[in-house]
Amino acid sequence: MRTQVAIIGAGPAGLLLGQLLYKSGIDAVIIEQRSPDYVLGRIRAGVLEQVSMDLLDKAGVGARAHAEGLPHDGIELLFKGARHRIDLHDLTGGSRVTVYGQTEVTRDLMDARAAEGLTTVYDAQNVQVHDFEGQSPRVTYQKDGQTHELACDFIAGCDGYHGVCRASAPANLLKTYERVYPFGWLGVLADVPPVSHELIYANTERGFALCSMRSATRSRYYVQVPSTDKIDNWTIDQFWTELGNRLDPEARANLVTGPALEMSIAPLRSFVAEPMRFGRMFLAGDAAHIVPPTGAKGLNLAASDVGYLWTALTEFYTEKSAVGIDTYSDRCLRRVWRAERFSWWFTSLMHRFPETGEFGQKIQEAELDYLVNSRAASVSLAENYVGLPMNFGT
Amino acid sequence: MRTQVAIIGAGPAGLLLGQLLYKSGIDAVIIEQRSPDYVLGRIRAGVLEQVSMDLLDKAGVGARAHAEGLPHDGIELLFKGARHRIDLHDLTGGSRVTVYGQTEVTRDLMDARAAEGLTTVYDAQNVQVHDFEGQSPRVTYQKDGQTHELACDFIAGCDGYHGVCRASAPANLLKTYERVYPFGWLGVLADVPPVSHELIYANTERGFALCSMRSATRSRYYVQVPSTDKIDNWTIDQFWTELGNRLDPEARANLVTGPALEMSIAPLRSFVAEPMRFGRMFLAGDAAHIVPPTGAKGLNLAASDVGYLWTALTEFYTEKSAVGIDTYSDRCLRRVWRAERFSWWFTSLMHRFPETGEFGQKIQEAELDYLVNSRAASVSLAENYVGLPMNFGT
Repeated sequence: MRTQVAIIGAGPAGLLLGQLLYKSGIDAVIIEQRSPDYVLGRIRAGVLEQVSMDLLDKAGVGARAHAEGLPHDGIELLFKGARHRIDLHDLTGGSRVTVYGQTEVTRDLMDARAAEGLTTVYDAQNVQVHDFEGQSPRVTYQKDGQTHELACDFIAGCDGYHGVCRASAPANLLKTYERVYPFGWLGVLADVPPVSHELIYANTERGFALCSMRSATRSRYYVQVPSTDKIDNWTIDQFWTELGNRLDPEARANLVTGPALEMSIAPLRSFVAEPMRFGRMFLAGDAAHIVPPTGAKGLNLAASDVGYLWTALTEFYTEKSAVGIDTYSDRCLRRVWRAERFSWWFTSLMHRFPETGEFGQKIQEAELDYLVNSRAASVSLAENYVGLPMNFGT
Repeated sequence: MRTQVAIIGAGPAGLLLGQLLYKSGIDAVIIEQRSPDYVLGRIRAGVLEQVSMDLLDKAGVGARAHAEGLPHDGIELLFKGARHRIDLHDLTGGSRVTVYGQTEVTRDLMDARAAEGLTTVYDAQNVQVHDFEGQSPRVTYQKDGQTHELACDFIAGCDGYHGVCRASAPANLLKTYERVYPFGWLGVLADVPPVSHELIYANTERGFALCSMRSATRSRYYVQVPSTDKIDNWTIDQFWTELGNRLDPEARANLVTGPALEMSIAPLRSFVAEPMRFGRMFLAGDAAHIVPPTGAKGLNLAASDVGYLWTALTEFYTEKSAVGIDTYSDRCLRRVWRAERFSWWFTSLMHRFPETGEFGQKIQEAELDYLVNSRAASVSLAENYVGLPMNFGT
């Protein structure tokens, strides 16, 4: 089998790249080691930047996100018992975010791919990438007891943090940066109406909490827990009690509880791999970087990587230009590090850090107080939250 | 002896308070354990906010600061080998800072106090503060072999970090917050023309450096050193070499070296004591808080404390209102914590922290890159650097 671009991974990054390349007339095959149901069952991010919405539109799959997604013009910061609204729309001169679950994005992309009859190989075993440092890369995998080979011009590594692509990069060329936070997020998905129509980010003495949502009838809530905590230590009733304890009285009164559709603890981590290109293999999304979820940058960063890669490959095939390919890693990484900085900062601002002591907590309070009283500081938060333009600072 | 306000400490905070009170017709005596020459010999800050300049004007001592001080409309940030100017004047809509040494401020205030024949007791031994929790505070001290007592309505503790006033506050009411940084500043004062007409703050692989000045012919330079370093490890020639190594080629070429008027290592510390009022005793300036010198907030914070205290005492004596006195601590501390946050942030941004590792350094680079490319982020730096208004956020 032969294709122009072999995409490893059928998550939202790989699927979006496939759809964008299809629109540009570039042939791609997606190889995924999991089943479609497994991919769709992963519950992840839910806040899309305008940059991401634009890319869904360009891929021709934005209709349902526009129709069913919830446009959000602001967020609320809760600290010292009071909520303060950050008016994203006003502060950025008209930008907003869209609440639309990653699962829905994935479903829309899978449906579009199926409708066009494009090839996705699911349940591929022992996926391996070869010869990407030369001119003729190959991907091999096993399926139905047979070994298959996919010859290609380029490999797009959209296979996540644990994927094979980054693991196959030459160790002497790869440099990684990492920070592990001393806490995780205990998250619950439940079919109850959200406590508020906008997201609430809470800095409390008991730790961070986030009130998010997927729709007007489905809520997504999180509370900070020690990284040593286990899901078996928690019942759903204990979760609702703890969440209520971290909210202001009005929000607590509005909190509707119910059974959990999903309940789990996720660790928080910052991670970047450099570079993001190795010869004819490109890394995109979680394969190259992880952000802590505070600020919802993970999926959006994957989308902008894919946007740069789509541009680079289109320039290569239609204009015979290697400029986009040669600058892909630097362009991505500049944006990646900006988002890493924002996610690290917002995480640091909102969580309890046992090791920073009382001075650290007072600094958090002073920063929150300054943040809601300074228009410049509010704009800085807002412009990062809605997403910096893809050509920011260039 | 009796006075209305007994001021402990004849540094810039105590002297400024004395002069402002004199202008309001309120009687004050200053008690200082050191000699005038010792006080004048301390080499400290050199950048005045507009708020501080305004207070010098109100005290009637601003003439020389206006005539000889250097107005600065910008600063430069040096990182990854290139300088980026932060246009304070443009970004803040017209504010600037004035470079004028703390020593000169002190001299102007001492001269004015002497000209008015106001009482300052220098070389006072064993200064003690008494009965400030009641209605009739007293100060006792020894001088020329005799014990003296000063009866007063109020005590103003302007006696610095090591002073007697905070140490005399009831331990059960006092709460302190502290952060010690793992480095110090090796500083040199020299009669050589400054390397640039504006301050350069440098983030380099070898550590932080600051090119500052006191005048067109007197420079003040600093390099970050480990907190374990000793002044005996350094010669002035080694200092000039190390400073040059932390500058860009153009600045290095402009660097004029010469003998040191003063050369010493100062540790960096953040410290806040709460509250700042204990009955009829008020703390102001370094007696209540220390900031790391990055961003030059120490003297300015002392000046704004004195501004609040002057207002409070004037209201008390002329309007029989205790509102200013009762709100003094809260008003000061809100501004103090804002400046503590800024000083901590600017210190964290510009220095090498061994413990944050490579991820921390990349985050610094990303923040600096964002800072100079985002107007909102630049405004936030600028508005803090020139000094937030005294009524900010109220």
